[in-house]
Amino acid sequence: MIVLNKNIEAITNIDKDFAQWYTDVVKKAELIDYSSVRGCIIFRPYGYKIWELIKSYLDKKFKETGHENVYMPLFIPESLLTKEKEHIEGFAPEVAWVTHGGNEELNEKLCVRPTSETLFCEHYKNIIESYRDLPKLYNQWCSVVRWEKTTRPFLRSLEFLWQEGHTAHENFDEAQEETIRMINIYAEFCEKILAIPVIKGKKTENEKFAGALETYTIESLMHDGRALQSGTSHNFGDKFARAFDIKYNDRENKLRYVYQTSWGVTTRLIGAIIMVHGDNNGLVLPPKIAPIEIIIVPINLKDENVIKKAYEIKNVLEEKNFRVKLDLSNKTPGWKFSEYEMKGVPLRIEIGKRDLEKNCFVLARRDTCEKIICGFGNFDLRVKEILDDVQDNLFKKALENRKKKTSEAENLDEVKKILLDNPGFIKTDWCGDINCELKIKEETGATIRCICLDENIKKKKCVCCGKEATEKIYLAKAY
Amino acid sequence: MIVLNKNIEAITNIDKDFAQWYTDVVKKAELIDYSSVRGCIIFRPYGYKIWELIKSYLDKKFKETGHENVYMPLFIPESLLTKEKEHIEGFAPEVAWVTHGGNEELNEKLCVRPTSETLFCEHYKNIIESYRDLPKLYNQWCSVVRWEKTTRPFLRSLEFLWQEGHTAHENFDEAQEETIRMINIYAEFCEKILAIPVIKGKKTENEKFAGALETYTIESLMHDGRALQSGTSHNFGDKFARAFDIKYNDRENKLRYVYQTSWGVTTRLIGAIIMVHGDNNGLVLPPKIAPIEIIIVPINLKDENVIKKAYEIKNVLEEKNFRVKLDLSNKTPGWKFSEYEMKGVPLRIEIGKRDLEKNCFVLARRDTCEKIICGFGNFDLRVKEILDDVQDNLFKKALENRKKKTSEAENLDEVKKILLDNPGFIKTDWCGDINCELKIKEETGATIRCICLDENIKKKKCVCCGKEATEKIYLAKAY
Repeated sequence: MIVLNKNIEAITNIDKDFAQWYTDVVKKAELIDYSSVRGCIIFRPYGYKIWELIKSYLDKKFKETGHENVYMPLFIPESLLTKEKEHIEGFAPEVAWVTHGGNEELNEKLCVRPTSETLFCEHYKNIIESYRDLPKLYNQWCSVVRWEKTTRPFLRSLEFLWQEGHTAHENFDEAQEETIRMINIYAEFCEKILAIPVIKGKKTENEKFAGALETYTIESLMHDGRALQSGTSHNFGDKFARAFDIKYNDRENKLRYVYQTSWGVTTRLIGAIIMVHGDNNGLVLPPKIAPIEIIIVPINLKDENVIKKAYEIKNVLEEKNFRVKLDLSNKTPGWKFSEYEMKGVPLRIEIGKRDLEKNCFVLARRDTCEKIICGFGNFDLRVKEILDDVQDNLFKKALENRKKKTSEAENLDEVKKILLDNPGFIKTDWCGDINCELKIKEETGATIRCICLDENIKKKKCVCCGKEATEKIYLAKAY
Repeated sequence: MIVLNKNIEAITNIDKDFAQWYTDVVKKAELIDYSSVRGCIIFRPYGYKIWELIKSYLDKKFKETGHENVYMPLFIPESLLTKEKEHIEGFAPEVAWVTHGGNEELNEKLCVRPTSETLFCEHYKNIIESYRDLPKLYNQWCSVVRWEKTTRPFLRSLEFLWQEGHTAHENFDEAQEETIRMINIYAEFCEKILAIPVIKGKKTENEKFAGALETYTIESLMHDGRALQSGTSHNFGDKFARAFDIKYNDRENKLRYVYQTSWGVTTRLIGAIIMVHGDNNGLVLPPKIAPIEIIIVPINLKDENVIKKAYEIKNVLEEKNFRVKLDLSNKTPGWKFSEYEMKGVPLRIEIGKRDLEKNCFVLARRDTCEKIICGFGNFDLRVKEILDDVQDNLFKKALENRKKKTSEAENLDEVKKILLDNPGFIKTDWCGDINCELKIKEETGATIRCICLDENIKKKKCVCCGKEATEKIYLAKAY
């Protein structure tokens, strides 16, 4: 049984205008508010709580794998930012510059960090002397600024929240192992916690991080068939170490450069959750990162027994560590149903006079709109079971959607046709030439999202030039 | 038995040069590193972990008292910052200005937030319509920037980490209640968790927060007899609401201004912990915020039984949720003793071959240097008991020190003498005139740290002018 959104302003139809639907949802689900600062958003409590849950899962995982949190300065002096040539070329066009402090002009302008490789390198040079000091496995949670021209909440903003891991190792192999370890942690997190299936791969030379040897990425597919880069992990080799002169005494007492990595995910993940799981009633949240897992709506607000029972249910669930809310506000049940559907709360408990007479209550799933009659005996187990099923079901639906929207193509005409008929991922082959990469983008609007790892591409031809292919790739239009 | 610091470079004697002692400790205990960004510090893992522990205690307390976390933009447009007259006058001289984004000059310059009242006000104007929307109880954890001329790690820096609570209420009384609630939470936190006794009071008109009606403060006393403002809570009345036009429909359906508060503590608290508890062997940390509560040092690294037992102890303690570390590095026990004393680890477990023969191990307290022989039966209870005692003892010592360094004075000559002989808090009386306040500072270097709440000052005379006093105050030289 589907409950209609009679009581709140309708949002735009998801299949009619996806961009407008997105804008409606982020506002109406009270995830964000706009401010007078162009391109910066306000994370409202409901939106920020999702980020807090993401943080607590990942932070635990980082610490389990030996990483420690630090905090680096917000500012980077121009001379420090420019030390690694490719790095500054990549970031210079998009940084914000502080030129005045108090009432005085600064001798050297400071950029507001767009990322903190340069600061970590300066620090590592100070504190690393010997192989005994390695590896250094650091991470920081902070906000960074990139001067974007066009912005969208969560997806692209002047300021965003993220974590950035920065590590230093004795040799290339250890750095590579760390790079892969972290992209795997991101992939597992997206699939298990956010219920978002991802494709793991490598970025092309053209698309890799400014200053990296190699960039690994996880790519997910949104409801509208566009891809979203959802996390990246970079192997720097000793490039930054050479630019910043970070050397250590190795086990043979010889001076060597360290090998470094960095990796990060951002509040963009919240955009992914919205665009992968949402529907025409608003947000749909996987239970594991839902600020409210269960909303309790009493049908008869003036019936003492109903209210008493509602509290009982709440207390039992809270004791079992569910995130649960009882809404006793003076609104109609229908209004509340719509409100918490808009907010994507995975499970609703309805309890009224008539339910009590039958010694039961109603469970309503957000993902399937299914209603389930539930007795009071061990009902917390039932709730747990259903929430687990919602989590699984959301992943399955997303995977199903991605499968439907993944095609194969042998030439650019096929690519163009697919992008019109069934936009999504296009798995194909590439010769490795940047000219083909640029031509694909120019002619189709799709970009190489990633190069597949460990795939057999014998006897395949490049989707663009028809010459022998060296790489299996995923193409897609992307956010 | 006192263990000497033979194995690490000595730090400056705490009573000879307290400022240099402080600088030595923050570096040698690996709390911070300096960077090429003037006045900004790097929080190293050990220093940042203390902040994480502070955050987790306070965040829990804030949430228990109904507050929700949000995140506001890092930047404030000049026009927004200048809306409340007193506020901008207070902050203008110390903000950093972003004037360029990417390669372009901005139409309007943006300041890097020194505090976020103006952003919260703009947001509250957007989202508050009715008394049903009140109170709004928001908090954010972030970093802020104030362009200080002279800086010291944790105590005064260009950028620091803090939390800022911002609330909106229906009337003055509720705002006042919140203001007091929060200063009480800070006071309790400092005393119970940081083991730092504080004095609660009100700031003078001259010292209150720019834009506030009233500022409440907690003041603590450092080892050298200087005071440190350790947390503040401000009642704004409807001043900001009038400047930002934040109105709501009240219960009688009349438009009224909201009443607001803000309150904050910063990474300065880490400075307070160092300067209240530290000694000539380095840092001394209260167990409740110690990144490592117990360090285990095996005496015979090559003895399998010793190592096995050390692991057993570690596992038992970890299971009981103690923060424990086993140091198996290839250094001498003596070196390790000094190292973890420098780092202020509250409790050390020493275990060697001879201890095993006697079926016991040694516990060494950081605060008293006392060594205790401990058997293996239920030793975790013994450890808990001792850590609790360390926590209590540190508070008692700090309170004792404050008592010794708190004097009374009746005139400025007495104030001057006390500041020479026994610097600390001076409890005295004041007529309330700003001219006396300024004269006290000019002549003695001490400032009014706070006005006492609810004290009888009948028939007392102003310490400065000798006229009738209206306020009981605490004077001190301050950081």
